[in-house]
Amino acid sequence: MTVEGTPQTRRARKGTLPVSVADDIERQIRDGAYQVGDKLPSLREMAALHKYAKNTVVTAFELLVSRGLIEPRRGAGYFVVDKPPSKAADDEAGSLGRAIDIVWLMREQLKTEPGAVAVADGFPPVEWLADVRLDKYHQKVVRTGLGSLFRYGSRFGYAPLREHLVRKLADFGIGVAPRQIVLTHGANEAMDIVIRYFVPPGGKVLVDDPGYYPLFGKLKMASAEVLGVPRLHDGPDLDALEQLLITHRPRLFFTQSLAHNPTGSDLSAAKAFRVLQLAQKYDLLMVENDPLADFKPTSSPRLASLDQLERTIYIGSFSKSFSAALRVGFIACGADLASDLADLKALIHVSSSEYCERTVDVMLSEGHYQRHLTRLRSRLGAATEGARALFDSVGATLFAPNAQSLYLWASLPGVEDSMALATALLPQNIRLAPGRIFNVDTAVVSPWSRYNVGAVMDPRFSQALHAALKQLDSGR
Amino acid sequence: MTVEGTPQTRRARKGTLPVSVADDIERQIRDGAYQVGDKLPSLREMAALHKYAKNTVVTAFELLVSRGLIEPRRGAGYFVVDKPPSKAADDEAGSLGRAIDIVWLMREQLKTEPGAVAVADGFPPVEWLADVRLDKYHQKVVRTGLGSLFRYGSRFGYAPLREHLVRKLADFGIGVAPRQIVLTHGANEAMDIVIRYFVPPGGKVLVDDPGYYPLFGKLKMASAEVLGVPRLHDGPDLDALEQLLITHRPRLFFTQSLAHNPTGSDLSAAKAFRVLQLAQKYDLLMVENDPLADFKPTSSPRLASLDQLERTIYIGSFSKSFSAALRVGFIACGADLASDLADLKALIHVSSSEYCERTVDVMLSEGHYQRHLTRLRSRLGAATEGARALFDSVGATLFAPNAQSLYLWASLPGVEDSMALATALLPQNIRLAPGRIFNVDTAVVSPWSRYNVGAVMDPRFSQALHAALKQLDSGR
Repeated sequence: MTVEGTPQTRRARKGTLPVSVADDIERQIRDGAYQVGDKLPSLREMAALHKYAKNTVVTAFELLVSRGLIEPRRGAGYFVVDKPPSKAADDEAGSLGRAIDIVWLMREQLKTEPGAVAVADGFPPVEWLADVRLDKYHQKVVRTGLGSLFRYGSRFGYAPLREHLVRKLADFGIGVAPRQIVLTHGANEAMDIVIRYFVPPGGKVLVDDPGYYPLFGKLKMASAEVLGVPRLHDGPDLDALEQLLITHRPRLFFTQSLAHNPTGSDLSAAKAFRVLQLAQKYDLLMVENDPLADFKPTSSPRLASLDQLERTIYIGSFSKSFSAALRVGFIACGADLASDLADLKALIHVSSSEYCERTVDVMLSEGHYQRHLTRLRSRLGAATEGARALFDSVGATLFAPNAQSLYLWASLPGVEDSMALATALLPQNIRLAPGRIFNVDTAVVSPWSRYNVGAVMDPRFSQALHAALKQLDSGR
Repeated sequence: MTVEGTPQTRRARKGTLPVSVADDIERQIRDGAYQVGDKLPSLREMAALHKYAKNTVVTAFELLVSRGLIEPRRGAGYFVVDKPPSKAADDEAGSLGRAIDIVWLMREQLKTEPGAVAVADGFPPVEWLADVRLDKYHQKVVRTGLGSLFRYGSRFGYAPLREHLVRKLADFGIGVAPRQIVLTHGANEAMDIVIRYFVPPGGKVLVDDPGYYPLFGKLKMASAEVLGVPRLHDGPDLDALEQLLITHRPRLFFTQSLAHNPTGSDLSAAKAFRVLQLAQKYDLLMVENDPLADFKPTSSPRLASLDQLERTIYIGSFSKSFSAALRVGFIACGADLASDLADLKALIHVSSSEYCERTVDVMLSEGHYQRHLTRLRSRLGAATEGARALFDSVGATLFAPNAQSLYLWASLPGVEDSMALATALLPQNIRLAPGRIFNVDTAVVSPWSRYNVGAVMDPRFSQALHAALKQLDSGR
């Protein structure tokens, strides 16, 4: 096998081994070492040959199946499929030549490029989620009555899952009834529905700046006027917020209180209180998006926990802690608004997928899931620590040095425009998420980048980072 | 058991037996005959006691599980759940008091009311779909790599399913490449994406009149100006169409060529050709929505088969022939437009559900599925024949007396406003879909109603219909 490094050195890259094995096999398939119709070595042969754990090979093969490269044939093993998907098929233009804009970054997020270092990812590493194997629970999903699932679901979404969410939100100190919950096609659709309900063309909307760029895209699509509230290490800049409220009288403020994307910062309890006071004074609705809720202690300060959904609309998701392939998210809000939003959802696409909602419901009922979350938090803690140590070693500045954060928002010494750094790292197949794309005004130069702590520990990243910093330094 | 009728008379209502058994048990649970935590009689006891086939009881129990009333406990049987969902929970206002408007009708479509006769349904009866049991194929779904499904999918959607659709569309005589196909969260979302791409506020859009009312709702939400093209028994009224094109110069025309909702009419080949000529002359894009494609011969005339997606955007779905709970639909169009629409989809909600898309892909690969479609068409044929005979017997006028049509569009003797008939039938738990709600201008009185042929054969319907006609007659 012509692979980079020995199994031992590759094994040292914590957690990335199955991806690395899958990447190696993919390369061999694309290079023609395995031809269409060829049978791959058996799991056992593969494991013995390279001294991998059998589970590693199982996961690697599953990754290859999901990439459409190989397929299992019952009792016969894994075979190279007929037409492996062309790597260029989805992106005829070639991504390097494209402007780094919202759509480009969203496209990048959707790709699984073999060999790429995923520091720009908005996601935990696949390995962190791999212990929640959908297939292991499928018998139970099936037993809940999938056989009779031919109709649209309720306009609110699958009732047992909503009852589950009532209990989950109670753990966060948010008291809701099932009819205050609307299940959606992911958290992004939840935001889209809220925008379509509240925001007329030209309507003024506040957002965190920097903030969640797919939200900005949705607001622009709705012809909204997007006003950025500077994000500080403990939440919104209150003075700037009040000034914007006085000047523009916006109706909505979209914010991420916890594990803020991209800065990784958390709202402090004191700021939460002050933000809600301002919201009341200026009749502002808060839309609190909380996709990383499961990564944080349940007691973390949330706007919705303080004001009990009086003027907060809470949006949640299962994409980061369970599976983004299911596309299940939810909105929790006042009962009248929930009913209206459920109607709006029905108008747009009739209903969300009860099939997926039942699957999530089964998973949440498993004791195993709680253990998964515990493990996820501990992995996140270790990765955050390691990533912070790496950034310290190169003299980086961290915006919000939290202990538990999927994202680190860091600026590097000598780097004034992180786009330059992103460009310097691209040839080494390392894609950064430069700060500018998270700004409301993407023309503003930013020294910051968002780093996924799960990918930062890949030794290829630290090597490339050191080399790029040296290069930038010598270029001055 | 206090049930209406004996098992024998109920069995006579073709195909509705499992629903009827489920309804009976639901009533007993709500009446307290079975209490929270009670174990239901076993499948075998239930079957033996009432002389049902065991499969009937299995399906009935699954329906009850899907209604959230009972739950299976492994090896122990079925138990009444803790908190059966309140029947009023989803609709605090009570639907009878509400105006019969778009949202109301959509809400009605989402309900499974025990005992209701589903003549207003836009759906084939559950029994027609019950031979495609998702649970039976789950092992195969799981084997395709669900275990590694933690990420968003491609922005176009799961590649193997798109390749499947290429072959399916080839059967319809529509030549496409995989990159011309964008998978969506059902056909309704496909329409929403097309509207958001093409229609600015105030933009003029043509639709079939009468037509698909959820489309009208979406267009109104987009602040479009909706212009109705009268629908005749063989397609659009060409003179009216040309007049609208000359006067308003609209950019889009949404139409259903086959098994048109609500009239059940099919586009003739001659009209398809003329419509496309007009489209070319006036630079009009056609959006051809084809949700009942699987109910019709593959050779039926479609706009997309004639013009090969030159100026036709084709929208398909699996909701009516497979399962609406999956929410998988698609758009087929030119490659550049497909790429733009995939980006727009990513902007709205990142991606569609690969989990659901893999499930559809597995089902389409099953030889069983082709047999299911054959059976579906033969059931539809028989039901259409029976329904036509019933309407003939009461002297009804049929708009488009086709042999294979899920919907019949019928007007009844002495009924000038079908709203009056709908109101007369409501107390008997029979909800009609009165013509007015399918009109672009819902104020226009219509003698027509849409009838689901799968529900028309329920003897309760014919009895109620005869009684209502008599009552309306004597009231004059």
